[in-house]
Amino acid sequence: MSQTASLSASVVELAEALIACPSVTPATGMVFDCLEGQLAPLGFEITRFLAGEAPDGPVENLFAVRRGPAGSRHFSFAGHLDVVPPGEGWTSGAFLPERRGELLYGRGAVDMKGSIAAMVAAVAQIPADAGTISFIITGDEEGPARFGTLALIDLMREKGEIPDLCLVGEPTSVNRLGDMMKVGRRGSVNIWLEVEGVQGHVAYPHLADNPITRLVAMLAELDAIVLDEGTDWFQASNLEVTDLTVGNPATNVIPAKASARISIRFNDLHTGEGLASRVTEIARAHGGSARAVISGEAFLTQPGPFSAMLSEAIEAETGTTPELSTSGGTSDARFLKDLSPVIEFGLCNATMHKRDEAVAIADLETLVRIYTRVTRAALARI
Amino acid sequence: MSQTASLSASVVELAEALIACPSVTPATGMVFDCLEGQLAPLGFEITRFLAGEAPDGPVENLFAVRRGPAGSRHFSFAGHLDVVPPGEGWTSGAFLPERRGELLYGRGAVDMKGSIAAMVAAVAQIPADAGTISFIITGDEEGPARFGTLALIDLMREKGEIPDLCLVGEPTSVNRLGDMMKVGRRGSVNIWLEVEGVQGHVAYPHLADNPITRLVAMLAELDAIVLDEGTDWFQASNLEVTDLTVGNPATNVIPAKASARISIRFNDLHTGEGLASRVTEIARAHGGSARAVISGEAFLTQPGPFSAMLSEAIEAETGTTPELSTSGGTSDARFLKDLSPVIEFGLCNATMHKRDEAVAIADLETLVRIYTRVTRAALARI
Repeated sequence: MSQTASLSASVVELAEALIACPSVTPATGMVFDCLEGQLAPLGFEITRFLAGEAPDGPVENLFAVRRGPAGSRHFSFAGHLDVVPPGEGWTSGAFLPERRGELLYGRGAVDMKGSIAAMVAAVAQIPADAGTISFIITGDEEGPARFGTLALIDLMREKGEIPDLCLVGEPTSVNRLGDMMKVGRRGSVNIWLEVEGVQGHVAYPHLADNPITRLVAMLAELDAIVLDEGTDWFQASNLEVTDLTVGNPATNVIPAKASARISIRFNDLHTGEGLASRVTEIARAHGGSARAVISGEAFLTQPGPFSAMLSEAIEAETGTTPELSTSGGTSDARFLKDLSPVIEFGLCNATMHKRDEAVAIADLETLVRIYTRVTRAALARI
Repeated sequence: MSQTASLSASVVELAEALIACPSVTPATGMVFDCLEGQLAPLGFEITRFLAGEAPDGPVENLFAVRRGPAGSRHFSFAGHLDVVPPGEGWTSGAFLPERRGELLYGRGAVDMKGSIAAMVAAVAQIPADAGTISFIITGDEEGPARFGTLALIDLMREKGEIPDLCLVGEPTSVNRLGDMMKVGRRGSVNIWLEVEGVQGHVAYPHLADNPITRLVAMLAELDAIVLDEGTDWFQASNLEVTDLTVGNPATNVIPAKASARISIRFNDLHTGEGLASRVTEIARAHGGSARAVISGEAFLTQPGPFSAMLSEAIEAETGTTPELSTSGGTSDARFLKDLSPVIEFGLCNATMHKRDEAVAIADLETLVRIYTRVTRAALARI
């Protein structure tokens, strides 16, 4: 079918079409219409829906599936159409994709409209009877992510569409395409700490109770903790104090309240709950309180057949052997790992979230070939 | 002169007239007109002037002097006509003086329009040939105080009007009128601390340098300092952290900068400069910087003839022996001590800076008698 051939020949145009739809988190409407227009001709059955309510919703999501013969394998691509805000100072418009030299510029070029275009172009190479392929695409990965991929997972469970393997197209490559994939991610928990004291005049400290004194002691104790030394697949867990708040304009007043926020990125030696309890205990020992929000638990897709299959595809197309990493921030893989084994692999991340985000056009084309290889291999395995 | 007799009979009306002129810091215009109208009939020569420029000025000040015979003693009353903002929730209007029962209500009733009214009423009792009496009155004591009493002192030096003794009418009494005078004050220095780091993503702490970690360590070290154990006349010096500022809304970002503010109230074992240097050294050891603003040095008017004279007057009128204290915040006495020995004595401070500030009418009348006695005694001494 000529539509398919044309698609496979134009991963750059597919990426440009997606970039040209402004879609700062939460992405809605036009950018989903665009992707739907790319997938429908390939035979995908598409489900779009809004999930959640304010303040973290509603969020637009898209699930697309092209079913293979009964009993065939099911391989999923996952990703997000939302992008972080462009910020200032772009050479060309952030949402006006522009090819200059060997690069394609635009917000989302690598994170991750370029990858999604490569997925579409790859799937266009795969015969429909090779197996089941699906797309798990959210409009809120860069934001609160409460009603994005989680809602898609709910939908897939309802429909009984459970993949055997899932590949997330996050930009995991560092210096050159193919040098890194992510087989896991650290967990993440943010904890808000608060100490209440008794306000008073600095000249009469015995009539006041300075909450800052206790907060400082609490934070010094937290900063001194060594959570672990790392594991075979994970770097050491780490705690950072990311904010301090008092907001007392009066130089002669001891304030009534002092707050801090910490962020812990942790490996699979810990759980978010366990860390929250430990911090809460320290906070209480200093007369304070703690409120934790767990963004994701640590997880590891144990290196094995799936990572080997992906490594083979990468090596065949780039000559590079990818590092199997668990470094970096969180991604929606933290949710998808409950559905099936999940690995992340995509473009080079040097320009992601920055102005003049750009992808090498050659990388886009190579990524199509890698994704095509891995899709074939994933569907072929018993 | 009947004017004088009428004035001496109406300290409450004098106070009411001053309270009825709204004069939140910086006080200007009407409230000074009111005081001028009270002092002029008593034979005072009045100098009013504006000092300073934005942001801490201009400030209105008033110097009034009634010269005695050549070679006579010079006794000064000092005070301020500005008041702190009334805030919400007054039973009657903050600037609508109201007598209810045995109390007179209104902003400034004790701090310190009531005291100024008592000074005026006291002076009305003193014959003009008894000696030189002056009033050193500023419109900015509760605020930055850069262009208030300091400018008055400059003026007095220019005019050669240097008092032998100075009484500041701050509300120094605690539980009952006469139970405390202040013979000194601790010094005060505020220090702004700042640590610069390198911003980054919490998932990549090795690429960032968290300034909060160093600020917390710095503050923990500062909090652990014992400055001294107090002296014969002073309580122990004390350091309080009064503010923390980062202002980082992003849970996944290590911020670039963290700040704190400390306030040290210190006795005469220290100087503001010495403390600033010590804190700066600790700040630098943690890779931070410090900026100090010294509000006042510690000072002591060594208990002796002046305090004894005031104690005698207080005991005679109240039966109470006043405690000689150096506690509490700063006042303009920190400046006036460069001009002459200075002691502070005034009304009960329980309601100062609060809503429904009020003075016992009987206290106003007793204070007139105490001020009259001490003025006579101060002018009589050789």
